[in-house]
Amino acid sequence: MSSMEQGGKTAARGWAASDASGLLSPYNFSRRAQGDGDGDVTIKVLFCGICHTDLHVIKNEWGNAIYPVVPGHEVVGVVTAAGPGVTKLKAGDTVGVGYFVDSCRSCGSCGAGHEKYCPRLVLASNGVDRDGAITKGGFSDVLVVNQDYVVRVPESLPPDGAAPLLCAGVTVYSPMVQYALNEPGKHLGVVGLGGLGHMAVKFAKAFGMTVTVISSSPGKREEALCRLGADAFLVSHDAAQMKAAAGSLDGIIDTVSAEHQIVPLLELLKPMGQMVVVGAPSKPLELPAHAIIAGGKRVSGNGVGSIADCQAMLDFAGEHGIAADIEVVGMDYVNTAFERLERNDVRYRFVVDVAGSHLDATA
Amino acid sequence: MSSMEQGGKTAARGWAASDASGLLSPYNFSRRAQGDGDGDVTIKVLFCGICHTDLHVIKNEWGNAIYPVVPGHEVVGVVTAAGPGVTKLKAGDTVGVGYFVDSCRSCGSCGAGHEKYCPRLVLASNGVDRDGAITKGGFSDVLVVNQDYVVRVPESLPPDGAAPLLCAGVTVYSPMVQYALNEPGKHLGVVGLGGLGHMAVKFAKAFGMTVTVISSSPGKREEALCRLGADAFLVSHDAAQMKAAAGSLDGIIDTVSAEHQIVPLLELLKPMGQMVVVGAPSKPLELPAHAIIAGGKRVSGNGVGSIADCQAMLDFAGEHGIAADIEVVGMDYVNTAFERLERNDVRYRFVVDVAGSHLDATA
Repeated sequence: MSSMEQGGKTAARGWAASDASGLLSPYNFSRRAQGDGDGDVTIKVLFCGICHTDLHVIKNEWGNAIYPVVPGHEVVGVVTAAGPGVTKLKAGDTVGVGYFVDSCRSCGSCGAGHEKYCPRLVLASNGVDRDGAITKGGFSDVLVVNQDYVVRVPESLPPDGAAPLLCAGVTVYSPMVQYALNEPGKHLGVVGLGGLGHMAVKFAKAFGMTVTVISSSPGKREEALCRLGADAFLVSHDAAQMKAAAGSLDGIIDTVSAEHQIVPLLELLKPMGQMVVVGAPSKPLELPAHAIIAGGKRVSGNGVGSIADCQAMLDFAGEHGIAADIEVVGMDYVNTAFERLERNDVRYRFVVDVAGSHLDATA
Repeated sequence: MSSMEQGGKTAARGWAASDASGLLSPYNFSRRAQGDGDGDVTIKVLFCGICHTDLHVIKNEWGNAIYPVVPGHEVVGVVTAAGPGVTKLKAGDTVGVGYFVDSCRSCGSCGAGHEKYCPRLVLASNGVDRDGAITKGGFSDVLVVNQDYVVRVPESLPPDGAAPLLCAGVTVYSPMVQYALNEPGKHLGVVGLGGLGHMAVKFAKAFGMTVTVISSSPGKREEALCRLGADAFLVSHDAAQMKAAAGSLDGIIDTVSAEHQIVPLLELLKPMGQMVVVGAPSKPLELPAHAIIAGGKRVSGNGVGSIADCQAMLDFAGEHGIAADIEVVGMDYVNTAFERLERNDVRYRFVVDVAGSHLDATA
């Protein structure tokens, strides 16, 4: 184990971006010591997925980067130590850490189990912790996290393929459950076949649903139908195909973050059908009122999932053998991985083998 | 009673628009005879509200007018005769007829009690009936309607003030119930204080909710607070007022059909808050994905209400003494009324005293 207590702190080694170039390099830092927190656990990081959000943040595309930025919020690791008051976890447990590592625990959202919408949410990376420290993510050898924000990863899941479940997985699973888009026999549309989309297809099939993938890339048809098991495939710019499928879907998970028209998607919904937006194009979506009034249709946003959602998702994934399709890379490859991610050249998620990488420049 | 059976038809007198000028004038026509339908009732029209939809249709602004157009779909009348098979109504009953007078009864929407979204919905005016006839609305002395599309109007309601409930009322009541925006203690925002908006305020107060009216017109403050009993009033373009109210609303009913920004409205919602769009601006609403992802917010459309909703709404209105605020006019005033409606010069709904009007040009 590479971490140790030094003067009340936990030494950590990771890779960080130091400016808006977004280039990562080795970076040694310290985290709070486990004993300082109530209910903290120390986690040795095994694998960490790479999410589009990481890309936005390290390049300061959202204007909120606090350098040096250690990215990573799709973490699978092993508990190495559990602090006083830890009742739910013990050393040796395989666990996951996702998009956030704390919340206020007292607001309406926290009280209702929707802590993902807490206004004082502490993000796993580039967030502001309760003690004012800037949080540093899973591109590092060790994490110290309160037990209430750590989930168990079922033994049946591969730890590398499970890592993207912590963000990509729960981001689509959570609204599927919330909006009853998890019922056998219902028909789900999945728009965009990337990190989020391919997870939505897997969950929907495991729920016993009929799944139609809608994509702007005709070349993804075989992948969608033959490998992921979708039931149908629509090319979004093929008006005849789209028209023939009008009114057929109970729900849609729209994962596309490129600019796109949503009216043709809304037309695929049955009356009172539910569209969930999880991809965030930079320009506003165009939503004509008549497109939702005529059929009483619904458009909702969803950001990640709360801890209970995440645990339920992992348990479900464990029972059904669902993991992300990934490309495992070493930490010394992450700058290339981010370049490839930027041009969507990954099927479907990069996962960094953190424990198997040399993290020190001098190692 | 002015209707009679003539050669298997029901003679009717009304006012119709004959071209896109939208000018109405006396018009004699015939409807199907009651005996021709299974379960039909004949209704003497007492009052008929004037809705913005009537204005759009008589001027062919939606390109779907089939002249001559007899408008009107907010009807209160009295049953004068009931055909074979009518079990639910009898002569003398005070009844209402709303936006539609038939549906297919076999599609998924009809089966689920959401017949308002039936693709073969027969509109009360300017629709296509099952026999191919173009339907003619409540600006006439008599209607013949299947009993299943007729609702009872509680005796406690004034028949003139009840007329707008049949469309304006149910259009806001229906989504309030559907989205649980009818619970005491919840906080509802009502955007726009017109025909629909003022009904939403009345229902919300009767439900025991806290109500904030949001309007672009500062002059409506006193009306909203003092006369309609709203709890708060926000001027939509006052950024400081709007910011101070951020995150305070459980739901919003947006009745505005003029172009407007919805992001400042979405910011008023609590996490997972529900916005319902019932007004239809001609240009698409601008909906940035992040505005709904960050708080898991929801935007749904709603069109009128199904028959069961409508009956429940009327029963609720009867119990709570809720009617529309109206200006009653004679049929000979309707052309002026439509002009005034076009410039929003009505508080809040015109209702035509059909039974009290001379309908014939020669009368």
